[in-house]
Amino acid sequence: MAARLEGDADTPIRAVAPLDKAGPGDLSFLSNPRYRSQVAASGAAALVLKAADAQALLTDAAPRPALVLCEAPYAWFALAAQVLAPEAEVVAQRSPQAVVDPSAQIDPSARIDAFAVVEAGAQVGARTWVGPGCRLAAGSRIGADCRLVGNVSLMQDCRLGDRVLIHAGAVIGADGFGFAPFEGRWLKIPQTGRVLVGDDVEIGANTTIDRGTMGDTVVEHGVKIDNQVQIGHNCRIGAHTVIAGCVGIAGSAVIGRQCQIGGAAMIHGHISLCDGVVVSGGTLISRSIAQAGFYSGVFPFMTNRDWEKNAAVVRHLDELRTRLRRLEAGRRDAEGEEPGP
Amino acid sequence: MAARLEGDADTPIRAVAPLDKAGPGDLSFLSNPRYRSQVAASGAAALVLKAADAQALLTDAAPRPALVLCEAPYAWFALAAQVLAPEAEVVAQRSPQAVVDPSAQIDPSARIDAFAVVEAGAQVGARTWVGPGCRLAAGSRIGADCRLVGNVSLMQDCRLGDRVLIHAGAVIGADGFGFAPFEGRWLKIPQTGRVLVGDDVEIGANTTIDRGTMGDTVVEHGVKIDNQVQIGHNCRIGAHTVIAGCVGIAGSAVIGRQCQIGGAAMIHGHISLCDGVVVSGGTLISRSIAQAGFYSGVFPFMTNRDWEKNAAVVRHLDELRTRLRRLEAGRRDAEGEEPGP
Amino acid sequence: MAARLEGDADTPIRAVAPLDKAGPGDLSFLSNPRYRSQVAASGAAALVLKAADAQALLTDAAPRPALVLCEAPYAWFALAAQVLAPEAEVVAQRSPQAVVDPSAQIDPSARIDAFAVVEAGAQVGARTWVGPGCRLAAGSRIGADCRLVGNVSLMQDCRLGDRVLIHAGAVIGADGFGFAPFEGRWLKIPQTGRVLVGDDVEIGANTTIDRGTMGDTVVEHGVKIDNQVQIGHNCRIGAHTVIAGCVGIAGSAVIGRQCQIGGAAMIHGHISLCDGVVVSGGTLISRSIAQAGFYSGVFPFMTNRDWEKNAAVVRHLDELRTRLRRLEAGRRDAEGEEPGP
Repeated sequence: MAARLEGDADTPIRAVAPLDKAGPGDLSFLSNPRYRSQVAASGAAALVLKAADAQALLTDAAPRPALVLCEAPYAWFALAAQVLAPEAEVVAQRSPQAVVDPSAQIDPSARIDAFAVVEAGAQVGARTWVGPGCRLAAGSRIGADCRLVGNVSLMQDCRLGDRVLIHAGAVIGADGFGFAPFEGRWLKIPQTGRVLVGDDVEIGANTTIDRGTMGDTVVEHGVKIDNQVQIGHNCRIGAHTVIAGCVGIAGSAVIGRQCQIGGAAMIHGHISLCDGVVVSGGTLISRSIAQAGFYSGVFPFMTNRDWEKNAAVVRHLDELRTRLRRLEAGRRDAEGEEPGP
Repeated sequence: MAARLEGDADTPIRAVAPLDKAGPGDLSFLSNPRYRSQVAASGAAALVLKAADAQALLTDAAPRPALVLCEAPYAWFALAAQVLAPEAEVVAQRSPQAVVDPSAQIDPSARIDAFAVVEAGAQVGARTWVGPGCRLAAGSRIGADCRLVGNVSLMQDCRLGDRVLIHAGAVIGADGFGFAPFEGRWLKIPQTGRVLVGDDVEIGANTTIDRGTMGDTVVEHGVKIDNQVQIGHNCRIGAHTVIAGCVGIAGSAVIGRQCQIGGAAMIHGHISLCDGVVVSGGTLISRSIAQAGFYSGVFPFMTNRDWEKNAAVVRHLDELRTRLRRLEAGRRDAEGEEPGP
Repeated sequence: MAARLEGDADTPIRAVAPLDKAGPGDLSFLSNPRYRSQVAASGAAALVLKAADAQALLTDAAPRPALVLCEAPYAWFALAAQVLAPEAEVVAQRSPQAVVDPSAQIDPSARIDAFAVVEAGAQVGARTWVGPGCRLAAGSRIGADCRLVGNVSLMQDCRLGDRVLIHAGAVIGADGFGFAPFEGRWLKIPQTGRVLVGDDVEIGANTTIDRGTMGDTVVEHGVKIDNQVQIGHNCRIGAHTVIAGCVGIAGSAVIGRQCQIGGAAMIHGHISLCDGVVVSGGTLISRSIAQAGFYSGVFPFMTNRDWEKNAAVVRHLDELRTRLRRLEAGRRDAEGEEPGP
């Protein structure tokens, strides 16, 4: 990641901070244009930003922080922040208050915390940390360098790759929601598939990913999922896609690679989104999308008074269009025009 | 459930599989028309479908799978799948790592897993399985043949019928959200009601159902609730209603029997839906519905560019209608017509 | 809270009940006008309501309940209900099945239940009750008279004030959702901030509040948050604001004091709402709001058939407006008018 340093290369940096809070010893950055106005006044000891922004926003007159000039300041900042706040190394240990089935295979370098339950045949890879109250059900498998923060449920036969981070309360592999209607009741379809999660995936707190009905639910490498997301049975989430909080994805939906699904968006079941689709927060996607791009669909907010008036018209838009057509036809008649398409 | 067999009655069947994955030994089915095109090429050993679909989609030329012809193929398939993947029988046991109050009444055939907490006066019925980390608070009662998968919280005095299945992380009986405003602060209304759940109910992972403020929150027989659903205090959910993921139902709403609430739909509080109401995913129901039927209300999605243009018009629809009326009035004046309604 | 008693001051009251369920010994109230029709027939022994409502709804002929006449009947009722159903006093105890780090500081009057984990340096105040399966991660601090109902995760270094009530399954302090895009992958931004929660805050079941990326996420005094709410990193929620179920608030949003956010509303990141903003349920707030008031934005629901017709028009509103303008221009031409704004 190419970057050019301007200023004192020996500036001591101890921590990262936002532009408006940063002081001596702090590294900060500019990426979101929303915060351009904070650059000049920032007390940061060092700043990561684009060269063009540095030129536009900083004067030579004032004392300048050390500058890291690069084309991807947020990414550069991320790596610097990782260096400044390294994750604690996992210390191998197995809490005497954990319950581990004798048939489970746990790497000796793994850490299993109190009140964790590791059931028959479960496997835990090297340096993986299973936090308090987590449950690894029978036959589940976790790769190396994973962390299940706490109270995470990984249900039977589900699998995680390497470097997977799952936050508290997430449930991976609950039954899919499948019922057949029959004579006014609902018959349960046994949910015999699994959830397969790739490498470098992050899954947020209280997020739920259901097992496949038949076949598996798949989360590919590098996917990042925020809190309280619900992913239904037999979905496939393409590599390096990000899914913001409160999103719901119904069963058998297929999301492409490098998509970005905004918060609280909803994806219908049995449809597919191609690679590179960006969905606005709050949008409901009801049909497949075959072309990469940015899609939206939310009612704009306004004062309740205006909303009441406009929503009343929405209920009769079809009729409004008919009236408009009638006027247009009248005008054409009056002027002797041919009708348009 | 009447069905007619066509083909070899001795075809060995070991598992179920979707049409496009099925091979020898697999039973598959056609119900959703979306998958009609997969029937002819399916490698399934046996197929459940409607007779008309079999006739339309399968030729006599190709080798045919065994056929189960019936009017409700999905329901027939559900029962077959239940036979092929029977639930494990519950083995009576009580983990030494569970904490059970001496006054709790636990049927000797029940199973209580590690780190479960069963508080004073709680009751657990025959063959019920209380998974790891579940909590049955004081005075709660569970019927027979239930399963609380793990980390389920059943709060004080709440009750479950028989054959209730609750997935990990669900919370049944947290306080309802009730506060009275007073001088800029909020005074808590004590939540003294219960949650009463009928027989044959399924409740999804991380779903929350609040106790009643006064009186009870009621979930009737046969209701199926998906993951991450929120049901407020004093709601009543009618028998055999299904509620998909991420739905929110505000306090004191009454949902009829055999309703279907689509994913992420929201139901206002203090309203009622009659029996047989179907609500589209993402729809907000803000008033009572007295007639069975299919109701929708979501902004259609489009490219962000189109959305920006159309949303801008939505903000001024009321004005647009006024302008249209003015034009119509002008035309009537010009033509000497009487104004319409 | 001024109130005037009318009727027998010695009427025995044992419990509270809704108007339509109340009988002898019950106190009920009228606040929501929706329930006015239930007042006359209520069997309540005592009623809290406004004097004007009493005069309008109760006749002298029928036997009258004792009346508590006041201007804020719901608030008066809340206090009465608190008196009638007092919370159990917390009995100091520490379950032998809890795991408490020797460096944790737990007030002797606190209660720590089974399977709770209290990590290094955590602090628990007087009379605070940490329910079963809760986790207080390293360096976390809880004030006095708090209750964490069960399975609550309070992550490292997060802080709660006094009298904070957190329902089951809530996660306070999971990592914020922060990633920098780089060459098709996502680089994690370490989340080094905290969550700071003030006094008298209530947080619902399975709600998640993320820690700050840099700097803290702040929930001020008296805030009430319902179930399944998601609050992103670095948000600030102003004092005495209420947030209903299923709401999502994206990172770095600032919500003012005494706001009311309706169920399933969504607030974009990096925007601010001033004090006293009321947001309708289901509304997406995409820009900052600088003026107190009531804001809405949801597609009104209708029968699916009507919705299909109207939604089709929504997709072409921009074009519809253009056609209307054309008609207006034609009329102006015909009549020799000047074009409007």
